Amino acid sequence: MKNRQVLKVFNKTIKEIMPSIYLWLFIGAIASALNTLLTIMIPKLLIDAVMKKVTISYLLKMLLVIGVSKYVLLETNKWIVIKQNNQKGILNQRTMKRFAKKITAIDYSYLEDPDILDLKERATFAVQSYGALEVIVNSMIKFLTAVFTLVGISGIIIQFNYLFLLIIFVLSALSLVFSYRIVIETQKSTQLVIPINRKYNYYVGQCLNGSQQNDFRIYNMSDMMVDKIADLNMESMRWFDKLYIKIANILSIQSLLNHLTQFVTFTYGAIRVLSTQFGTKITIGEFTLLVGASQQFSTAFMFAVESYFKFIESLNYLEPFAQFMALPESEEKHGEIVPESFETLEFHNISFSYPKSEKKILNNISFSIHKGEKISIVGLNNAGKSTIVKLICRFYRPDEGEILYNGRNIEEYDYDEYMKILAVVFQDYKLFPFTIRENIVAGRTNVSDEEIWQVLEETNIKAAICELPKGLDTYLDKHIHEDGTDFSGGQRQKLAIARSVVKQGELVILDEPTAALDPLAESEIYEDFHRLVRGRTAIFISHRMSSSVFCDKILLLQDGEIKAFDSHTNLMKQNNLYSELFTTQAKNYQLQII
Amino acid sequence: MKNRQVLKVFNKTIKEIMPSIYLWLFIGAIASALNTLLTIMIPKLLIDAVMKKVTISYLLKMLLVIGVSKYVLLETNKWIVIKQNNQKGILNQRTMKRFAKKITAIDYSYLEDPDILDLKERATFAVQSYGALEVIVNSMIKFLTAVFTLVGISGIIIQFNYLFLLIIFVLSALSLVFSYRIVIETQKSTQLVIPINRKYNYYVGQCLNGSQQNDFRIYNMSDMMVDKIADLNMESMRWFDKLYIKIANILSIQSLLNHLTQFVTFTYGAIRVLSTQFGTKITIGEFTLLVGASQQFSTAFMFAVESYFKFIESLNYLEPFAQFMALPESEEKHGEIVPESFETLEFHNISFSYPKSEKKILNNISFSIHKGEKISIVGLNNAGKSTIVKLICRFYRPDEGEILYNGRNIEEYDYDEYMKILAVVFQDYKLFPFTIRENIVAGRTNVSDEEIWQVLEETNIKAAICELPKGLDTYLDKHIHEDGTDFSGGQRQKLAIARSVVKQGELVILDEPTAALDPLAESEIYEDFHRLVRGRTAIFISHRMSSSVFCDKILLLQDGEIKAFDSHTNLMKQNNLYSELFTTQAKNYQLQII
Repeated sequence: MKNRQVLKVFNKTIKEIMPSIYLWLFIGAIASALNTLLTIMIPKLLIDAVMKKVTISYLLKMLLVIGVSKYVLLETNKWIVIKQNNQKGILNQRTMKRFAKKITAIDYSYLEDPDILDLKERATFAVQSYGALEVIVNSMIKFLTAVFTLVGISGIIIQFNYLFLLIIFVLSALSLVFSYRIVIETQKSTQLVIPINRKYNYYVGQCLNGSQQNDFRIYNMSDMMVDKIADLNMESMRWFDKLYIKIANILSIQSLLNHLTQFVTFTYGAIRVLSTQFGTKITIGEFTLLVGASQQFSTAFMFAVESYFKFIESLNYLEPFAQFMALPESEEKHGEIVPESFETLEFHNISFSYPKSEKKILNNISFSIHKGEKISIVGLNNAGKSTIVKLICRFYRPDEGEILYNGRNIEEYDYDEYMKILAVVFQDYKLFPFTIRENIVAGRTNVSDEEIWQVLEETNIKAAICELPKGLDTYLDKHIHEDGTDFSGGQRQKLAIARSVVKQGELVILDEPTAALDPLAESEIYEDFHRLVRGRTAIFISHRMSSSVFCDKILLLQDGEIKAFDSHTNLMKQNNLYSELFTTQAKNYQLQII
Repeated sequence: MKNRQVLKVFNKTIKEIMPSIYLWLFIGAIASALNTLLTIMIPKLLIDAVMKKVTISYLLKMLLVIGVSKYVLLETNKWIVIKQNNQKGILNQRTMKRFAKKITAIDYSYLEDPDILDLKERATFAVQSYGALEVIVNSMIKFLTAVFTLVGISGIIIQFNYLFLLIIFVLSALSLVFSYRIVIETQKSTQLVIPINRKYNYYVGQCLNGSQQNDFRIYNMSDMMVDKIADLNMESMRWFDKLYIKIANILSIQSLLNHLTQFVTFTYGAIRVLSTQFGTKITIGEFTLLVGASQQFSTAFMFAVESYFKFIESLNYLEPFAQFMALPESEEKHGEIVPESFETLEFHNISFSYPKSEKKILNNISFSIHKGEKISIVGLNNAGKSTIVKLICRFYRPDEGEILYNGRNIEEYDYDEYMKILAVVFQDYKLFPFTIRENIVAGRTNVSDEEIWQVLEETNIKAAICELPKGLDTYLDKHIHEDGTDFSGGQRQKLAIARSVVKQGELVILDEPTAALDPLAESEIYEDFHRLVRGRTAIFISHRMSSSVFCDKILLLQDGEIKAFDSHTNLMKQNNLYSELFTTQAKNYQLQII
């Protein structure tokens, strides 16, 4: 994206959520510039008055007038800043809300795409840590203030001599060239240091991460890690030292230019006081005004340039955010049909590769599931078992073929309505830091307490919740809610299952959530689940081969293809991967029991 | 920790790793203060000269002298800043190195203590994100510069009138009282907003986290989450708006005080020019000097106060770092005996609770393991299986009882030497972003390629590594090494096992690393491992009950106690948890096969 496009996104965002920000930005800049101009004028007024030997009472009156007008300006300016702070707060808040909403709305496939995840990280950094929107607004304010100040000061200086203004301008512009050099050198060094810093941060992260410390200690890795960190740090420091020296040299030239400007100003001013060589004599007050104006000219010029560079820099930071906000959303691809009660789900010649991967994870597979059937999907690691679930959930679209729900392509259904059919317990299911009730009721309205308690009883978790003083209204996270509760892994899985039951989706999917449970807890959950699924259609994925014994049919996946789709009894009669897997796990148990 | 103690830690750190920083800090402050004083003097010198109607050539000479001396000062100052930047870089680098080293050296138990982990997080924030050390150094530089400037300016003003200096001082001090009010109000509001922000950041984190998006979508959680975020943001904004207005009101009073100072200065100066009421008449040049000095006095006073507050604030930030660096280290508790070849390992009446937990995870357990035995530890979730491993690894110390290695308490052995005995594959084993060779050789020197390849062949991973163009020198992480490789879960586990084999520890421990593998990969790894362990002593922990069939003895843990320590055959003859667990897992396999 070019800066212009990023600016468009920024402008659109401002216009949609806080258009008045531009008005206040303008008013604030004018008030601030006026204040600076008044500050330059004061010494001149005073010195001129004193030189004319005015009375002290006249002087005091004058000082009072100046003081009051300056006070009014400062006060105005301050209330403008309060208003601006408030606006920036709201702007940030609304932007974060939009960003959060966007993340939950984009095509799911993006969330497993490393490039998009990287983009999301950079966008998060831009709006959360760097505060790009605020930085842009701030640099706009500074730029406008500097420009208005420059205009006012030019008005003052030109009354002395337009050629002098031109010289001051040329000297400032020359200095600008060197400022630009600094920006370029800094960018160049930063680019060089980025890969080093990336490694550095990664290693530091590893070192700071407590969860690695067991292997660190047993395998004595810490010295190696600390040395690598020190080496990388040294390497990036070498670059920065070089940069500092380059910058120092440039600054030295700029400082020379700065002194030249001062020298020219003082000389020109003094000559104007002492002689008529360059025009009529000026008073000491005017001399002071000229010197003050010239200094402020350089300062304002530098501010204008700096804030412009900052503006461009912040646009660069905002770029990933703008790109992210432009990603297409899941709902954009939906149809509008409301799905009817579950009858069949069919995979028709489905092929699928993950984005940016060449491996065909599913290769022309077809099968159908009918109402009330219990299906187990079996295969080696990475055989594509979870991929089938993701395709059913419309997280990804198949590359080829169609998935039909009741004979109609699932994409023709309204996205939200289709989601209502599905009750899924994912392998990496997540509960949220809400109350137990909010977690369980998720996505449904008007669920009675009775219904919730019944499901909790059926999932064998009622007793544990009854013990909690706040019952269903207990928060599921001690981390941010002090009166929250921390359930064990088994209890959390039961809650996740309860959630899927309360949802009343007609197609129930259980993707091996029992990996870390002991045999008793595992067996309990499977038995509960089979009971809870009742008459509904269900798909199971598990590495515990034993769980497929209960199912009507087993879908055997191998090398992206369906090797079999049959009952346990039939599959065990043949020599196939399923019987091999089953026998491998079973043999140790048999050894003893037969 | 009190600020004084934190300052002591800071001072000690500086003295140990970069004592010269103090010298440069001092020199830099003096040069910077001199530069400010010269800037105040210049207009006076010029105006006085011009008023005396000197010749232009004299004026030019004077300007040249002033210009050159200012240039020299600025140049000096710049090179000091370069030096200081370099020093700050090195300071940061060495501090990070110390911090990383400390994390790998503290008592392991700290790394599972939520309070210490929180401390570590805050310490990391302090030194990495906030850059507390640099902030402290910077605020010291600013403070010293301001103090030196104040001294110089006071010297100038006192030549006019010491009473005037006193008035300026009192007005600045009054302003300081209000600055302090701002700090207090800000702290109060921040304290109030902290819990809100904590929740806010947590929810935003949840929203931004891609891995939660499947449940977000299926259970339609996104609106709820986004609303919670918006509510929390609103809440904290309400506080900040209140704060902004309070601050604005205080600033308004400060601004009045500021104007009062200006008014007093201008009036006093003008009266001195116009009359002899307060002393001998002064020149316009001296008037300019007085005004400039008074303005710089206020500015320097503000700088001194601000940098002092910043200094205190950064000490507060540094506090968790200082606390963390003061934690005791594992090695501090070691003996010095070098352990001999493995004969026995005995648990003698060991009781253990995790720090800050009341639950006795192990309650008076005793058992011994003899050379060459293969032991399986079996129990429900949280029965204390992994705790036994952690105690053997000296990650924790038992609350009661002793662990004896060859009849001697393990704590009597030299820590590093004792670690050499252990070859552990943890449940959450980690490989590091180093080369394959560095990962495997970890902790040993002089391992021949031949030996490595042999182990890799035995762990069935040689072929996969041979395929890589860089072989053993391939980095194990594509994330930061472009020519790195990403191995699958099964392959990584094989490497972790290879690492434990190369280590040649005499006591091999395998803590259920196969949770997420398919039955074939799992079975392969167990078979490999049993073969690789050969004559060595070994402890296994696994939820796959079948793996205990191979072991000599099974240690059955229940409710923190040892219920049995016997062979599989003997245990299966009785009615106990082991036979129940085994039968539960086995029955589904039998159903079909018998």
